[in-house]
Amino acid sequence: MSRTFFYNNKPIVIATSSICGPKESKGAIADFVECKLQSDTFGEKTFEKAEIRMLNTVITNCINNAGLKNGDVDAVLAGDLLDQIICSTFAVRGLNCGYLGVYTACASFVESLILGGALIDGKYMNRVVCGTSSHFSTAERQYRYPLELGCTRPPQSQWTVTGGGACLLCLEGFGPKLSCGTVGKIVDFGVTDTNNMGAAMAPSACDTIYTHFQDTNRSPEYYDLIITGDLGTLGTRLLKHLLLEKGIDISKQHVDCGEMVYNICEKEYQGGSGAGCSSLVFCSYIYNLMCQNKIKKVLLVATGALLSSLSCQQGESIPGVSHAVALEI
Amino acid sequence: MSRTFFYNNKPIVIATSSICGPKESKGAIADFVECKLQSDTFGEKTFEKAEIRMLNTVITNCINNAGLKNGDVDAVLAGDLLDQIICSTFAVRGLNCGYLGVYTACASFVESLILGGALIDGKYMNRVVCGTSSHFSTAERQYRYPLELGCTRPPQSQWTVTGGGACLLCLEGFGPKLSCGTVGKIVDFGVTDTNNMGAAMAPSACDTIYTHFQDTNRSPEYYDLIITGDLGTLGTRLLKHLLLEKGIDISKQHVDCGEMVYNICEKEYQGGSGAGCSSLVFCSYIYNLMCQNKIKKVLLVATGALLSSLSCQQGESIPGVSHAVALEI
Repeated sequence: MSRTFFYNNKPIVIATSSICGPKESKGAIADFVECKLQSDTFGEKTFEKAEIRMLNTVITNCINNAGLKNGDVDAVLAGDLLDQIICSTFAVRGLNCGYLGVYTACASFVESLILGGALIDGKYMNRVVCGTSSHFSTAERQYRYPLELGCTRPPQSQWTVTGGGACLLCLEGFGPKLSCGTVGKIVDFGVTDTNNMGAAMAPSACDTIYTHFQDTNRSPEYYDLIITGDLGTLGTRLLKHLLLEKGIDISKQHVDCGEMVYNICEKEYQGGSGAGCSSLVFCSYIYNLMCQNKIKKVLLVATGALLSSLSCQQGESIPGVSHAVALEI
Repeated sequence: MSRTFFYNNKPIVIATSSICGPKESKGAIADFVECKLQSDTFGEKTFEKAEIRMLNTVITNCINNAGLKNGDVDAVLAGDLLDQIICSTFAVRGLNCGYLGVYTACASFVESLILGGALIDGKYMNRVVCGTSSHFSTAERQYRYPLELGCTRPPQSQWTVTGGGACLLCLEGFGPKLSCGTVGKIVDFGVTDTNNMGAAMAPSACDTIYTHFQDTNRSPEYYDLIITGDLGTLGTRLLKHLLLEKGIDISKQHVDCGEMVYNICEKEYQGGSGAGCSSLVFCSYIYNLMCQNKIKKVLLVATGALLSSLSCQQGESIPGVSHAVALEI
């Protein structure tokens, strides 16, 4: 069994686009975000329609940023947190291209990069767009409580990022290149607290990062940054602890998108989460740093907590899955 | 833009496994199904846990049927109709391999074949399993009404198949080979009747089949069978009509898994549907016919209706997407 593979032709991320809500617009990476919304409804009647419009905006902008137009890409690979990933469905409807829906919760962005990368690398397609989104208000009312209840949030909770990102992969142009990917395995430590996503996801992040280093004979020093998706503050501590037990110290290279996306204050507790968290941070700040040659080698590890309100009601624990992709410039 | 691509090394379906519920066990293809359940709860406390066990059973059996064991495959690509595709999540948990969740509703099976095929064909992975499932009782109570209500079904409705299938792809062995795939585009004819999936999906099936013939310079005569996923009786009529308008007559080659899966009687009206419909029929009857050389060239077109209960409540129409894959022996 091998979960890691190398890309022979190294697909290039030639363009990205990012979008975020008003709260994220005050965050640490806001200066690098292409489209900052003043209202989290984006002029739509419902939060769901707002998220659809957000994802559609980054996909369309990303295509335009690459100097292309609707009809010039072969397929969009997209995912989100809503039931039946309807946000992706309706964001892609109207685009003249193929559609492949992906879902591994907040790990969906890197899943789309791994699969999209294979489609480009193997020359099955010429241009694909990979994108994900999330929205605090759509996720909160679907997974937890009606927004109107104004429930108190426990200190281990994270704040679902209102935002998203998309990037365009092809074999010609300038940008960070995908060098290899490690597909995540489902890891279940028996966490049942739906407010503690960090603890649910950290073991899978540990498994994927450890597997990646084993399969590639690399060590943390190989990378300038090892970026996890949305472990948050507590999850990050758990990940570092679990990896140290296996003899791997990532403390010098590690950052977490969930920790970066907000100016950490009490209200968000552990930081950001959501399928749009890693895509927002990668498609804005990280992509910018890489294109400017400030960082050259990145391991992006998106982390997903696999649950639905029904699986929790039926007494299931919350397994995690994390996919990793290495980008180099 | 090109949505069709050819596999260079032609991944082989070396093994399959199929499972179905009591109702499907009386259907036309039942003799070819590996595992026929006497109860649709499969000894579990909930229908959801039953569906999870069903999908886990076909994935595990498929690996065993190939003479392999847990840990011998690189990844499972799976999808289902439940929110956050939790059926796939919990079916794959415990397997020592990578996990890639896919979702385009009832087109998920062919999406998993197209993507899994690319991973094998490009030699990124050595062995992958592709599988999907559905369950009448989980789908009915998630998408429509509580089962206890005993609602009257309108004549345009279909019956969600309790069943599923999985197949193992690799580059060495005996079995039908994937020769090419056509990724579906989202097509929206504005259908809003959640009971009329056939009408929602037929336009996308037409688009994918037409695109496939254009991209490959093939005609219906090239194939022994053109198999749609779950259009049902009405959807099939619409598809044939739409294709005839474009000058393509598939009436001699076309069959529909939804029409095949039951002995058509009044109760199921239009026939079967669900993410497990095409995987059940392909992994049992069709695979058997191909391995016996009774049919040699097949175009499998899984058809998906992209909706959630929320998207319908918010007034959205139901777009369709259909993916096609060509198999030859």
